[in-house]
Amino acid sequence: MKSFVMKGVGETEITEKESPEIGSMDAILKPTQGLICTSDCHTVHGAIGERENLTLGHEVVGVVDEVGDSVTDFTAGDRVAVGAITPDWSSKNAQNGHPSQSNGALGGWKFANVKDGTFAESVHVNDADGNLAHIPDGVTDHEALYTTDMMTTGFAAAENADIPMGGTVAIFAQGPVGLMATKGASLQGAGEIIAVETVDKRQDLAQEYGADHVIDFQETDPVEEILDRTNGEGVDAAIEALGTDRTLQDCIKAVKPGGTVSNVGYHGDGEFRHIPREEWGVGMAEIDIVTELCPGGRLRIERLLQMLANDRFDPTKMTTHEFEFDEIEEAFRMMDEKEDGIIKPLIHFE
Amino acid sequence: MKSFVMKGVGETEITEKESPEIGSMDAILKPTQGLICTSDCHTVHGAIGERENLTLGHEVVGVVDEVGDSVTDFTAGDRVAVGAITPDWSSKNAQNGHPSQSNGALGGWKFANVKDGTFAESVHVNDADGNLAHIPDGVTDHEALYTTDMMTTGFAAAENADIPMGGTVAIFAQGPVGLMATKGASLQGAGEIIAVETVDKRQDLAQEYGADHVIDFQETDPVEEILDRTNGEGVDAAIEALGTDRTLQDCIKAVKPGGTVSNVGYHGDGEFRHIPREEWGVGMAEIDIVTELCPGGRLRIERLLQMLANDRFDPTKMTTHEFEFDEIEEAFRMMDEKEDGIIKPLIHFE
Amino acid sequence: MKSFVMKGVGETEITEKESPEIGSMDAILKPTQGLICTSDCHTVHGAIGERENLTLGHEVVGVVDEVGDSVTDFTAGDRVAVGAITPDWSSKNAQNGHPSQSNGALGGWKFANVKDGTFAESVHVNDADGNLAHIPDGVTDHEALYTTDMMTTGFAAAENADIPMGGTVAIFAQGPVGLMATKGASLQGAGEIIAVETVDKRQDLAQEYGADHVIDFQETDPVEEILDRTNGEGVDAAIEALGTDRTLQDCIKAVKPGGTVSNVGYHGDGEFRHIPREEWGVGMAEIDIVTELCPGGRLRIERLLQMLANDRFDPTKMTTHEFEFDEIEEAFRMMDEKEDGIIKPLIHFE
Amino acid sequence: MKSFVMKGVGETEITEKESPEIGSMDAILKPTQGLICTSDCHTVHGAIGERENLTLGHEVVGVVDEVGDSVTDFTAGDRVAVGAITPDWSSKNAQNGHPSQSNGALGGWKFANVKDGTFAESVHVNDADGNLAHIPDGVTDHEALYTTDMMTTGFAAAENADIPMGGTVAIFAQGPVGLMATKGASLQGAGEIIAVETVDKRQDLAQEYGADHVIDFQETDPVEEILDRTNGEGVDAAIEALGTDRTLQDCIKAVKPGGTVSNVGYHGDGEFRHIPREEWGVGMAEIDIVTELCPGGRLRIERLLQMLANDRFDPTKMTTHEFEFDEIEEAFRMMDEKEDGIIKPLIHFE
Repeated sequence: MKSFVMKGVGETEITEKESPEIGSMDAILKPTQGLICTSDCHTVHGAIGERENLTLGHEVVGVVDEVGDSVTDFTAGDRVAVGAITPDWSSKNAQNGHPSQSNGALGGWKFANVKDGTFAESVHVNDADGNLAHIPDGVTDHEALYTTDMMTTGFAAAENADIPMGGTVAIFAQGPVGLMATKGASLQGAGEIIAVETVDKRQDLAQEYGADHVIDFQETDPVEEILDRTNGEGVDAAIEALGTDRTLQDCIKAVKPGGTVSNVGYHGDGEFRHIPREEWGVGMAEIDIVTELCPGGRLRIERLLQMLANDRFDPTKMTTHEFEFDEIEEAFRMMDEKEDGIIKPLIHFE
Repeated sequence: MKSFVMKGVGETEITEKESPEIGSMDAILKPTQGLICTSDCHTVHGAIGERENLTLGHEVVGVVDEVGDSVTDFTAGDRVAVGAITPDWSSKNAQNGHPSQSNGALGGWKFANVKDGTFAESVHVNDADGNLAHIPDGVTDHEALYTTDMMTTGFAAAENADIPMGGTVAIFAQGPVGLMATKGASLQGAGEIIAVETVDKRQDLAQEYGADHVIDFQETDPVEEILDRTNGEGVDAAIEALGTDRTLQDCIKAVKPGGTVSNVGYHGDGEFRHIPREEWGVGMAEIDIVTELCPGGRLRIERLLQMLANDRFDPTKMTTHEFEFDEIEEAFRMMDEKEDGIIKPLIHFE
Repeated sequence: MKSFVMKGVGETEITEKESPEIGSMDAILKPTQGLICTSDCHTVHGAIGERENLTLGHEVVGVVDEVGDSVTDFTAGDRVAVGAITPDWSSKNAQNGHPSQSNGALGGWKFANVKDGTFAESVHVNDADGNLAHIPDGVTDHEALYTTDMMTTGFAAAENADIPMGGTVAIFAQGPVGLMATKGASLQGAGEIIAVETVDKRQDLAQEYGADHVIDFQETDPVEEILDRTNGEGVDAAIEALGTDRTLQDCIKAVKPGGTVSNVGYHGDGEFRHIPREEWGVGMAEIDIVTELCPGGRLRIERLLQMLANDRFDPTKMTTHEFEFDEIEEAFRMMDEKEDGIIKPLIHFE
Repeated sequence: MKSFVMKGVGETEITEKESPEIGSMDAILKPTQGLICTSDCHTVHGAIGERENLTLGHEVVGVVDEVGDSVTDFTAGDRVAVGAITPDWSSKNAQNGHPSQSNGALGGWKFANVKDGTFAESVHVNDADGNLAHIPDGVTDHEALYTTDMMTTGFAAAENADIPMGGTVAIFAQGPVGLMATKGASLQGAGEIIAVETVDKRQDLAQEYGADHVIDFQETDPVEEILDRTNGEGVDAAIEALGTDRTLQDCIKAVKPGGTVSNVGYHGDGEFRHIPREEWGVGMAEIDIVTELCPGGRLRIERLLQMLANDRFDPTKMTTHEFEFDEIEEAFRMMDEKEDGIIKPLIHFE
């Protein structure tokens, strides 16, 4: 079958691979649509080390082609979404409330990490009953795609931020995860939402998704402006949605004593992140720094699909470009270079 | 000063009373607008026992007339809102995280309970720095009024319900507190919101404030319909916003194992409420029953005002009738009898 | 194989049954020791309806006899404990944080409910990697047995009670689950632990396991005495460990505003449980009523075994009688009638 | 009155100062006993900047000498303890659940920071009803002293660590706060407690207070040994009780995915603390870093005193040396230099 793979660090191509084999609890999926994620680009650049001929991609919806003998709730022909993270639900870390950390750090992340990803004509899904979700009538494949990573990840950033009803939140960076963190903050009852972003199109979407105010960090110091807007108190919660040292430090500086820094950015390089000691209250200001990997699983994805079925908002505004699967190399290149104001490129499978 | 009082059980009148005296931490407020609450009617009917010549009312906004010597953050002329509940913040129950229960059950509830209420030309507020909130420019007195009880109480019902992002919620009764619980559920990220109500105008407002579906309990059994809509699983959370045995039982029957019943209704009569043993999972289905009295205090009210300043929604649609202070007896009578589809009557002070 | 079964409501016998079949994720266990639980008696009396030839028992330790093809962490010969509740970890309710409610209310409870229990020469365990736990060297089978139900259930009652460090707790009834709730309260940092019990031996054990004070409800009204001991304030948390209407009501009456009632009793009969309306603060005193079914799973049981490995306390003091498997009918009869001050009867398999 | 003051950075002396004035909500206390804290030494070395003639000390018990007009629950002659942190309970940060951060970061810390401390013949206490606690009969002054800082701070480290019942905890450093974190972990139900410490006497006390295993970081790498002892998984929770970059980094490295790092150390120098990026799971391993300043207030201190009244453990074993108030300069010098294995020096007032 045709697959879009990472040949090695820095190299991608469309190639032929063997179709996946199915186990008794598994499903094989025929993709209809997928999205490229910036983390696919990180992977190709070597962020998680060398990979050989590994199929890329982890955001996909499609139709069930086949299910294993033990699968009871899904059958061939079902229209389904699958989370980017597909946990082993009986693992000890899942029992501990952290399914994304199954069997070790980030262990629930399988697609395009420890097994072939979703940019292929057939996709293998472990534990189909636990990790697939039916797409309700009235939700398009395009909409459903956004539940698999962008919504679940961005929303988790807001959920972890422990936002009080009517509280103040700052979200640093308005890429697609940051935009969904902004929408998530709005859906957690924030009373004042401040987005930090410099790109025009992203600033516009931030306001579309609930930001009350957007700070252009090229024009002003975001920490200063946040403190100004909050009478010097700082925000109840700050969300890091980029993965840089600077933005993490800014989060710590922008949050009030007793507030929360919620990290959802993937910190791809450097030996350390730096906590500014004084603004951290010399370790005693009751500022929590919390983190999350994209939550997956059937229940989570079904709930997010329910929100779309009830028209809570339209995530497809983040789709700036569309491509056929044959053109995926061009889509990938544009995403990697963030060319033409690209936010999310949609891939159509035949 | 002119005051609207409960003379005794079953009797009200407008009368003259002495102006309140101020302590060092207190403020005196000149009301501009107020709202009548159904709980004022309960009080007059004797729900909390006999009272003699007690000024009614607990939902008010106005202008600060005078502040005590120790008050630092408010001054005469400030436009302010005050929560219906005005806690003693250093009491042990407040230190325990339950300020509304200061010094005993419901002890933070002072207005029209243990001291004169707000339907008077002057209103005494204990701990002004802790219990008043400045009304931001751009928020009208009329809007701000709704933060003092309806929003803070209804929202608390939703916050306590522990609604998962995209989860399902049923709210029993759509009076003004139920309507704000509906809006609160929407602001806590619910994916499917089911309101139970039979009055037309309230059904319409329920949809306006976020209900995806309204069940008329006169036409269908709400528990059955809720189970139908959730594939027999039940909802993640059920909110009781009326205060009857029937609705509390329905909440327990409608919620899934592991779900939450959040009570915010004032249960005004009867010796017992009844937990249906089997639907409660014989005490082992991990269904929590939680309760709350209207949260008050400066921080809470400021946060809710911030939501209005940023146009999260318009609570004034609940105002169905308006009266001058001189006409308050008529307003009270209509509220008591729920005449003419009344939801909230607004009182204008001169 | 030899099995101790419920022939039908009111009837038990030792009989021959087919050995269980193994699935790919399962294990077959040869029991070494077991404990009889009062809930086995309830079952025989018909509390969960008719059963025909169902093997009884759910508290067992033993040696792995065989494992399915997909099992990776256990092998024949391993000495193991298995929780009374064996969840389906990828079910939606487990993903929701309630594994004991897998696939519906109480759905994780399989032994002696929906499949054969543990009083047999061979025992089938679903999802061996998720539900078995290795017994550490230095922990005896006898000690380990107590993790499977009494410790996990009683401790859960204390964990759910949200006991503040140094807070006050009352535990109603000191059967083996109540005793472990008492120990659990001590292990959650309670500052004052009040046990309610009338049987001498159980009163003694209550003090052994951490009670600072024991109230004999035959001699004094426990609610009155609890209020006396807490200056009329009530306790931070009350634990119901019996399953009667009276004790649940007493819990609600004994707890302070803002406190928690934690139910772990199995409420076996009656149409309703009764919430006393006034002491419940007319639905607004912020008293939470929470419930739990015995938590199971590998991680939970391993953690409890770790406590025994580090000599936190000795649960075997609850074993008042010992029997060979051949004598189990006599043991069962004594447990049913609570004869001779029996608390827990230990069963030795050959 | 005689006071032990910081004349300026690096200088202390016993001197005469004016007696404190009392406000309507305040109390004046005559100390009977006090303890010196290492943070007093930090203060003298300039950690919080220049101070002139500021009375030192924040751990004290004594007898009430006088109370203000509004104080209702305390009277002259009462034997009381007062927390090192004396919050403003109606401040916004206190209403937000963070009383120690009243009016800004660390704002509840008043003694020997923004007003005179407790090493004087008379001590001023703000909000007596909210911040004093009666010492129960049967608790000595010496025992009660430990509630004011060491117990409340060390226990808070354990409470924040979110330790599962039977979970694994590592506590880095066994000074008096670390020792109380160790005891706190035991009182939160930890199943395996690993202490890291090199000083003999402190190692012994660690075991006395609940450590199952002590690692001498001079002899072995604590992170390696912790990973070894936990099958490479890491601990559920790591507690930082020293305030250095090295120990904070070790905590992050020692904790499992989904675990918690609970900081209670005072980080006194350096521009940054360093988060090791990879061990932090590149920001996605769901490791939380939480912090706390010593919780104060009447309710908290009363609860801790209750634990002592019920003989939970003996904190006075940490008292290694005793002095008269006249000898406090020598006591202070020894504490500063950690001479003679000093842990806590007790000061007797006449």
